[in-house]
Amino acid sequence: MTITPAQQAEIDAQRGETAATRRPTVAALEAVLYQALPVLDRGFIRVIDYMGDDAAVVQAARVSYGKGTRRVSEDRGLIHYLMRHRHSTPFEMCEIKFHVKLPIFVARQWIRHRTANVNEYSARYSILDNEFYVPAPEHLAAQSQANRQGRGAVLAGAEAERVLQLLREDAARAYDHYAEMLNEREDGTPVSSDRQGLARELARMNLSLAFYTQWYWKVDLHNLLHFLSLRADDHAQYEIRAYAEVMLDLVRRWVPLTHEAFEQHKLNAVTFSAGALAAVKRMLAGETVTQETSGLGKREWTELMAALGRDGN
Amino acid sequence: MTITPAQQAEIDAQRGETAATRRPTVAALEAVLYQALPVLDRGFIRVIDYMGDDAAVVQAARVSYGKGTRRVSEDRGLIHYLMRHRHSTPFEMCEIKFHVKLPIFVARQWIRHRTANVNEYSARYSILDNEFYVPAPEHLAAQSQANRQGRGAVLAGAEAERVLQLLREDAARAYDHYAEMLNEREDGTPVSSDRQGLARELARMNLSLAFYTQWYWKVDLHNLLHFLSLRADDHAQYEIRAYAEVMLDLVRRWVPLTHEAFEQHKLNAVTFSAGALAAVKRMLAGETVTQETSGLGKREWTELMAALGRDGN
Amino acid sequence: MTITPAQQAEIDAQRGETAATRRPTVAALEAVLYQALPVLDRGFIRVIDYMGDDAAVVQAARVSYGKGTRRVSEDRGLIHYLMRHRHSTPFEMCEIKFHVKLPIFVARQWIRHRTANVNEYSARYSILDNEFYVPAPEHLAAQSQANRQGRGAVLAGAEAERVLQLLREDAARAYDHYAEMLNEREDGTPVSSDRQGLARELARMNLSLAFYTQWYWKVDLHNLLHFLSLRADDHAQYEIRAYAEVMLDLVRRWVPLTHEAFEQHKLNAVTFSAGALAAVKRMLAGETVTQETSGLGKREWTELMAALGRDGN
Amino acid sequence: MTITPAQQAEIDAQRGETAATRRPTVAALEAVLYQALPVLDRGFIRVIDYMGDDAAVVQAARVSYGKGTRRVSEDRGLIHYLMRHRHSTPFEMCEIKFHVKLPIFVARQWIRHRTANVNEYSARYSILDNEFYVPAPEHLAAQSQANRQGRGAVLAGAEAERVLQLLREDAARAYDHYAEMLNEREDGTPVSSDRQGLARELARMNLSLAFYTQWYWKVDLHNLLHFLSLRADDHAQYEIRAYAEVMLDLVRRWVPLTHEAFEQHKLNAVTFSAGALAAVKRMLAGETVTQETSGLGKREWTELMAALGRDGN
Repeated sequence: MTITPAQQAEIDAQRGETAATRRPTVAALEAVLYQALPVLDRGFIRVIDYMGDDAAVVQAARVSYGKGTRRVSEDRGLIHYLMRHRHSTPFEMCEIKFHVKLPIFVARQWIRHRTANVNEYSARYSILDNEFYVPAPEHLAAQSQANRQGRGAVLAGAEAERVLQLLREDAARAYDHYAEMLNEREDGTPVSSDRQGLARELARMNLSLAFYTQWYWKVDLHNLLHFLSLRADDHAQYEIRAYAEVMLDLVRRWVPLTHEAFEQHKLNAVTFSAGALAAVKRMLAGETVTQETSGLGKREWTELMAALGRDGN
Repeated sequence: MTITPAQQAEIDAQRGETAATRRPTVAALEAVLYQALPVLDRGFIRVIDYMGDDAAVVQAARVSYGKGTRRVSEDRGLIHYLMRHRHSTPFEMCEIKFHVKLPIFVARQWIRHRTANVNEYSARYSILDNEFYVPAPEHLAAQSQANRQGRGAVLAGAEAERVLQLLREDAARAYDHYAEMLNEREDGTPVSSDRQGLARELARMNLSLAFYTQWYWKVDLHNLLHFLSLRADDHAQYEIRAYAEVMLDLVRRWVPLTHEAFEQHKLNAVTFSAGALAAVKRMLAGETVTQETSGLGKREWTELMAALGRDGN
Repeated sequence: MTITPAQQAEIDAQRGETAATRRPTVAALEAVLYQALPVLDRGFIRVIDYMGDDAAVVQAARVSYGKGTRRVSEDRGLIHYLMRHRHSTPFEMCEIKFHVKLPIFVARQWIRHRTANVNEYSARYSILDNEFYVPAPEHLAAQSQANRQGRGAVLAGAEAERVLQLLREDAARAYDHYAEMLNEREDGTPVSSDRQGLARELARMNLSLAFYTQWYWKVDLHNLLHFLSLRADDHAQYEIRAYAEVMLDLVRRWVPLTHEAFEQHKLNAVTFSAGALAAVKRMLAGETVTQETSGLGKREWTELMAALGRDGN
Repeated sequence: MTITPAQQAEIDAQRGETAATRRPTVAALEAVLYQALPVLDRGFIRVIDYMGDDAAVVQAARVSYGKGTRRVSEDRGLIHYLMRHRHSTPFEMCEIKFHVKLPIFVARQWIRHRTANVNEYSARYSILDNEFYVPAPEHLAAQSQANRQGRGAVLAGAEAERVLQLLREDAARAYDHYAEMLNEREDGTPVSSDRQGLARELARMNLSLAFYTQWYWKVDLHNLLHFLSLRADDHAQYEIRAYAEVMLDLVRRWVPLTHEAFEQHKLNAVTFSAGALAAVKRMLAGETVTQETSGLGKREWTELMAALGRDGN
């Protein structure tokens, strides 16, 4: 993670200011507010603001005049009930805003989640920093042979070295040439007085998808959980999952009851198709079921066996 | 407005609690937080929570590490610039949550604004209160003859009296029969032991669109301003405009710079079509332009003359 | 269902016109295009237009230059895979447009699905027809005692008669008074020349939630299936379920492979929480599990037993 | 534009198929259906499907049982009225689907329009083609000195040559190294048997933002027009404007009345703020108004003078 001293001073200044509010507050989240939590080699996530807490979910579900909460056990039961039965609107009543620094190829996956608000650093308007992602050696994975959209074993030896060299050299050269084409010093004066400098909105196209961008991203709790159910999942690319895991931990700080219900009923839940359910019922009745007799496709059968912790053969 | 003592006590209890926060706070909005501001005869609007302030708009536009604000005049200029050039995403970075009590026919217009979060009081699950809207005499308008979707002069005399009588009697009778069909006391016991009571989800259909419902409604500042630009407008039905005007005043308390820019560039701005602009240019060049020579339709010409404060004949 | 001869003539005229197109067409859906399919006592659903078919889902998933389809078995496998793994965007590539006539209380539930396009008949602008919903005797259900949001046994005898009488009389009277307040004949002339007539936008508030409204509703296939997964479900109110079931049948005509995958992986699938899955695994290992030893709440345990077709005691 | 013979054959095959439909059809759009219309050096736009026409806008606005259209002049007047008064929902009743090939930096701007459906070619799953954007010499613009987010004069001579050389060489090298890291032939076999090949989802990060991607993009007419009002505008970056202009022409083919109303009331319209309107009124009254006496900021004054075709000094 790279935060300059000036940036850190800005962050510290904001952390230093407190005010009184009548709004609900969450001490565990206030404790990390504005702090840059590192992700990948140079990225971060910062919580900038939040609205609501577990009680706000309950309050909205009950359309109450006050907090609407009763005993903890009742509130907890209600939140689990809402989560299990897909009553999603009360979770939309909480909102959170992040400042995220992330590689562009991660940003391209992330932005596909449309129900959120975004302000991205503009490379039309400003000059991007010389910062790009290079995977740690343990994340330098080979293409999976089993799954076209997945990773296999970690690369090693000469192949790994060569890949890292290419990634580093190409990115460094791309940035050098970006800077050369811009012909512009940090203070806006030209490097070479006999050149005009290419427009920023054009020069940026020489940068690769490994470069870091940053944005403010604001989302309601329901849509955040939906994002996390897809991106904190094993099928997600490691690099976006790294962000999702930090956010999942922030959700735990923010709305612990909702976090618990989410883990129970979404993240660690499984959905069985009509056919898979039928197979489970037959197994429970003592029958020996195989892929062939289950009527399921090979892939779904494998997934079912994995979910049940069984050897499918 | 009707708030029971128990409800008022809940509101007062929430108003009485304060806590320290590192988040931006807005004193002028905190001052009215949770309070029920009356609208129409029995409705209200309460601000339940908010996220961000004018500085948050600036912060997001600059993707800053701190507040991102500079001198007030610069921030003000930036906010006006963003508003004028339809850079709407920074305004999405602020969020507000309301508790609203409103007649069902108003709720039906309101809900058409889809980019918001809503939790409505459920008449499948609960019993609605015996509260319905009756227009004040000065809002008992005749059908406009000029505009099929508008109001004409205020009704008077016997006609007004008869209308008010019908509205009151039909609503009162509808509620009595609703209660009779439910056959249920407030504590859930049956009124008459020889009846089962009709399901709430069916009985409610006997109530009219004048009855009050309530909901939690949460929206970002950009979409709130879009709502207000349509609903605080003269073309909006009076009853929803009454709500919009209270919200507009709350926006002024919350984000005064944004409010000023909104009034300047949206609410009190006018849009001239290509043809209308051509007519204005000709007028500025000293030419006398009439509807016929302008090439505009009659209706647009009338609107243009009104915008310019001119007599169109 | 009530379609006037003039309306039927309009429908027939549109059904009579055919043209050549290069777009994908679906004969089974064309067969019922524009036809009013009855729902409830006076409502209907009509398919007005559609875009795409099963092949369009495949085409988008493969980002192909042509249809993108291969053998039927491969396409079917892909569609099942997409549905099972929540790859929802290819299903967004199909679109359908309905004309629906429905009671207002049903419309109020329906409109909560925000990712759709709607044009509703305007009661500000036009006069509503004298048509309201009265439940058939077999749908006149009592309030459920077990579930606050549900129906119990069907009302019978004097209670049923009284309820039907109240619903009919109150609606009829409400409409009579609506017409009286409007003071307007169908041709726009006043009934009584000594009255101005109340504005339509006000008079409508005397009508009850049982009155029929109508709208054009357009939605993509993914969001339609989400709607159906909630509204063709046992927990949905009967009246909206009646519409969902007709639409589900139209989906079968339109995109049979997608319909099959939807029934298999969504509509008839079950989701087991982490705790429920653990219980199932223990049962499969031969252990006797009870609610107490499962760690599940009573309600979730009952649901699990129901899903497994077991007696939970 | 680069379409392989196999791709062209697929396109031709789809163009060759016609079927009868009861749906509205638009001959002028059918004429270009599926054809790849070139944009930039290697990109294209293809219309894949569409729903509705000008009559469908009218039909929805009138919630009709048939087409709902009357005389052309009445339909035209209604469409202009709807556009002028921001009645946007009837325009949401038409839908169009495009297949677009575009540079990644253009895709990153485009995707910010959230109210659309997208399926993008997956570089996690597949290997990207060796195709990247190089600006034509006349679009190789310098950074604007007046506007941080804009272009100045066209680069010339040695500076232009050097920029083009850098853009070409860096992109070519990036692709070569991408291919080397993948270690995979088109048929999936390894190039070098002693390497595993880096996972596709990682290797892609070596490609620059100049590389072409492709997607299916589906949008309703209202949101398409909103996109065009921002992206067919002078303030838009040239490269995305090139796409917007092709789409604008397709809108003209598809819904000519709506296109005309859009040009009149949106694209070529101007919005005057409250302050700008006051200045115009004073000018119309014969007063000489300057920036200072107008009360407008410098920038807004310049924009006002430009809109009025006046010299602002």
